[in-house]
Amino acid sequence: MTLNDRALAVADELERNADRYRVAVSKVGGARVIDCGGAVTGSLGAGLAMARVCLADLGDVAYVPGTVLGGPAVQVTTDDPVRACLASQYAGWQVSVGKFFAMGSGPMRALAAREELFQHIPGKEEARVAVGVLETRKHPTEDVIAHLVSKLPECAESLTLLVAPASSLAGTVQVVARSVETALHKLHELKFDVAQVVSGYGTAPLPPVSPDEITAIGRTNDAILYGGAVTLWVRADDEQLAALGPKVPSAASPDHGAPFAELFARYGDFYKIDPLLFAPAEVEFRNLKTGRCHRFGRSEPGLVRKSFGLE
Amino acid sequence: MTLNDRALAVADELERNADRYRVAVSKVGGARVIDCGGAVTGSLGAGLAMARVCLADLGDVAYVPGTVLGGPAVQVTTDDPVRACLASQYAGWQVSVGKFFAMGSGPMRALAAREELFQHIPGKEEARVAVGVLETRKHPTEDVIAHLVSKLPECAESLTLLVAPASSLAGTVQVVARSVETALHKLHELKFDVAQVVSGYGTAPLPPVSPDEITAIGRTNDAILYGGAVTLWVRADDEQLAALGPKVPSAASPDHGAPFAELFARYGDFYKIDPLLFAPAEVEFRNLKTGRCHRFGRSEPGLVRKSFGLE
Amino acid sequence: MTLNDRALAVADELERNADRYRVAVSKVGGARVIDCGGAVTGSLGAGLAMARVCLADLGDVAYVPGTVLGGPAVQVTTDDPVRACLASQYAGWQVSVGKFFAMGSGPMRALAAREELFQHIPGKEEARVAVGVLETRKHPTEDVIAHLVSKLPECAESLTLLVAPASSLAGTVQVVARSVETALHKLHELKFDVAQVVSGYGTAPLPPVSPDEITAIGRTNDAILYGGAVTLWVRADDEQLAALGPKVPSAASPDHGAPFAELFARYGDFYKIDPLLFAPAEVEFRNLKTGRCHRFGRSEPGLVRKSFGLE
Repeated sequence: MTLNDRALAVADELERNADRYRVAVSKVGGARVIDCGGAVTGSLGAGLAMARVCLADLGDVAYVPGTVLGGPAVQVTTDDPVRACLASQYAGWQVSVGKFFAMGSGPMRALAAREELFQHIPGKEEARVAVGVLETRKHPTEDVIAHLVSKLPECAESLTLLVAPASSLAGTVQVVARSVETALHKLHELKFDVAQVVSGYGTAPLPPVSPDEITAIGRTNDAILYGGAVTLWVRADDEQLAALGPKVPSAASPDHGAPFAELFARYGDFYKIDPLLFAPAEVEFRNLKTGRCHRFGRSEPGLVRKSFGLE
Repeated sequence: MTLNDRALAVADELERNADRYRVAVSKVGGARVIDCGGAVTGSLGAGLAMARVCLADLGDVAYVPGTVLGGPAVQVTTDDPVRACLASQYAGWQVSVGKFFAMGSGPMRALAAREELFQHIPGKEEARVAVGVLETRKHPTEDVIAHLVSKLPECAESLTLLVAPASSLAGTVQVVARSVETALHKLHELKFDVAQVVSGYGTAPLPPVSPDEITAIGRTNDAILYGGAVTLWVRADDEQLAALGPKVPSAASPDHGAPFAELFARYGDFYKIDPLLFAPAEVEFRNLKTGRCHRFGRSEPGLVRKSFGLE
Repeated sequence: MTLNDRALAVADELERNADRYRVAVSKVGGARVIDCGGAVTGSLGAGLAMARVCLADLGDVAYVPGTVLGGPAVQVTTDDPVRACLASQYAGWQVSVGKFFAMGSGPMRALAAREELFQHIPGKEEARVAVGVLETRKHPTEDVIAHLVSKLPECAESLTLLVAPASSLAGTVQVVARSVETALHKLHELKFDVAQVVSGYGTAPLPPVSPDEITAIGRTNDAILYGGAVTLWVRADDEQLAALGPKVPSAASPDHGAPFAELFARYGDFYKIDPLLFAPAEVEFRNLKTGRCHRFGRSEPGLVRKSFGLE
């Protein structure tokens, strides 16, 4: 079963229970658009479903009691971390059409496979359906759909899009479900061969939803940067892990220490923030080759509380 | 699907696995009675099923590691808090027939819809089946069934009752699964428009079962009063939340600070205990309108341990 | 449904999703062998499935946030603790054929029913299928299969074996899922009538997998000995619980206090280690007869960290 077929099954479940999940299904330019938080309220349930679609349903996502803060946290477990998190979940497709802009994620990326990332990881695939996730408040227009379809191979006969901004209930959940993904992506940026990562487990506190997009993005990022804890089972060299490890958690970045929204205000530009900041607070490597365990970074509950407006 | 139909599916699952759940199914006066803890031992599994029936299966219920105490806690998540918790789970039907008395909950309340509460909340419904939960050790008699049926509309052709006292394994679980419900009911008592509550998440430690009814009721109440933590996603005014919030957790009541059984002994009458005591120890409001987060109250692990007989 | 039939359904699910679970299915001497971690990598998902097979699917097994350490823990809940844990999960069958040795567990034990244990507990059964779990890195040979089949009654027409060493991802999980089992077995050793145990709940931190067998066995044991916490609902006499209780947790053993691998090095022989050491760090009894709660032992996070190589 392809990544896109796996995600489709979850999207179909969302549609079948649209009322209960408080999502709205429409047809735009031949594509099925499932609004999970743009014009609708969405739900905690829709957030889990979005996260599963992002992961091509190659991971489990659940609400669990938060250990960094009280309240709920989002837990992710996956035995296929590279395909689930990098080939599918990573928001590597910047969808920009006229004034429309959205971060694109989900398995449609593995169909398009235009990102440089796909030259380094497995996951590129052919599938008859395409399923993607757009982080945006705006409903995609026919132009947006046409643009996306033009980037997909012809084999993909239908497109399903799940849409929600970070500033929505479900959108918050699907971002915070990226604890393992951010660890993997950071490792990839550090030139670590992510094929060595066998399985992953992560948690991050679920932040209060903010209607302000910058605040919302800030909180979801901070949930991972300052409250995310990831365990990775790897087959690697201990020397490499010991050398690379300290660079992996967010604390390795000079920008570490301030809530994301403060950094954004300081630099005035998302892209001036150190890209290597984007990683969990804590990362533990468990080396299957040697049995050694390497733990780096630590949670910063005070920063999480500050970001979430709890102080 | 009606609340009652949703609950029926869970009740049917209980009956199909009666042995494994250690429940007993019988027919009384034309109704199906599923004893989950009166004359039978019941189980942790039956407790989850009872809780789901109470919630009309509009919420997830799970055992999770307790963060206030060690041991298991009961976690509830719902995207339909008013219907799940107030129209269905709230034990608002006092079933009194001769010497028989039981607190009635579950979606049959939404069919009868005789409580004043239903003039303020949605959820009233017509359904061909009725499903309810009685907190009692006594098996309902034909008279009790006849009484209940007489309060239900004619459309309800069949009645299923789940029965267990708080002093049973499953009964303890189903009470402790009321963390979100108590927060909602307290809000309603405080004249807050609960339609503003979009989703809810709560946990409470699972107490040791006591065969003594007062002790059992005391512990299940204390689990919520002193160990319950609830997160509510709302659309409301921050001023109202800031003003109302301090009144919501149990600490707002002058009766806060003593285990429930002590209060009962002090007053000698359940109904003399301040009704506004009944609320979780901690309540956090997350305002979707503004992104502001308001947290009130705090857990009292010492009181929970005392109530549970752990000191 | 027999224990073996229940386990078979889980084994079939493993085979259907062999790729995703990273397990390998083969036929040896007429038996189906599902390698979950010998020659294959296995997975976190296969670990849960193995644990469920061990428990004859009479318990729930889940990853949850660890409260003793950070990272994942394994949570077990069961309403049929004697059949699930003792008649099935307990590794009471030492499979020794020529140079082949493995600890055998799973419901095939309840079919063979040759262990003395089965004279004290219910669970012995007849079934047309046999399902077992072998803790070993070596693939069982035809001789091993023939030996096992010779110990099974004739009614058992087919045999399925799940195989993985403690030094594998799935193997680590299935051992750490034995928190409740070790409590029950210790109680049985102390001559407590385990039929009095109604339900069980336990957690233990999931250790880093070591390729070294002694280290791996040491860590999985230490996860329970020093990090395992078990809650048991019982019908018993408080006097007996108060008298017996202090002997139940691992701390009751003179060997308590050192990581298992150190003990192994000290004695040079697994069987010289005090067998009564094998028990969870914390055990709480909740007496359904009286409502009294008895808690014994405590977690030793420092020892767990030391064992896991986290210091």
